[in-house]
Amino acid sequence: MILVRQEIGDVLRDFRLQKGRTLRQVASKASVALGYLSEVERGQKEASSEILASVAEALDVPISQIMREVGDRISVLEGIQVFPDVVPDDLVAEVEPELSLH
Amino acid sequence: MILVRQEIGDVLRDFRLQKGRTLRQVASKASVALGYLSEVERGQKEASSEILASVAEALDVPISQIMREVGDRISVLEGIQVFPDVVPDDLVAEVEPELSLH
Repeated sequence: MILVRQEIGDVLRDFRLQKGRTLRQVASKASVALGYLSEVERGQKEASSEILASVAEALDVPISQIMREVGDRISVLEGIQVFPDVVPDDLVAEVEPELSLH
Repeated sequence: MILVRQEIGDVLRDFRLQKGRTLRQVASKASVALGYLSEVERGQKEASSEILASVAEALDVPISQIMREVGDRISVLEGIQVFPDVVPDDLVAEVEPELSLH
């Protein structure tokens, strides 16, 4: 089962490391307990929407960017590709009728 | 403050209505209490990752699609556009040096 909190945790940690900040710095700026933030990053605790907003602000990352990154990573886990790697049959029929099976 | 649970609730309800299903049908298929799902849809309760996975499966919608839609809606709330509506200065300088102020 794909767990959103695991992806949220990974994304929050990756943004934090990308910005060169420590757990302690972000926890302090977001007014969140250090141990709690650590558990959120490890996917062990669900972050409430309020905590997520505080941490996003502390990281200077829009919540939308966090959620989109979470969506993108989950889509990889789900094996869904953003762009189809085959041309749909009806498009083939339109462009190259002789190639179409229909 | 932007609350992720409100957007998740809206997105879940919109997908449910789009598929013509009742709260009762989805709650039953996802093995979630009807009142709980109703509160999640109204943004009054945080859905745990397990509940979110069950509801997504009951709706036949990939979790990634739900999270991306949530990200897109939050970006509108945040006033962030996917595509910039001005051409960055360095690109202007590269393409049309005489138009550049630099």
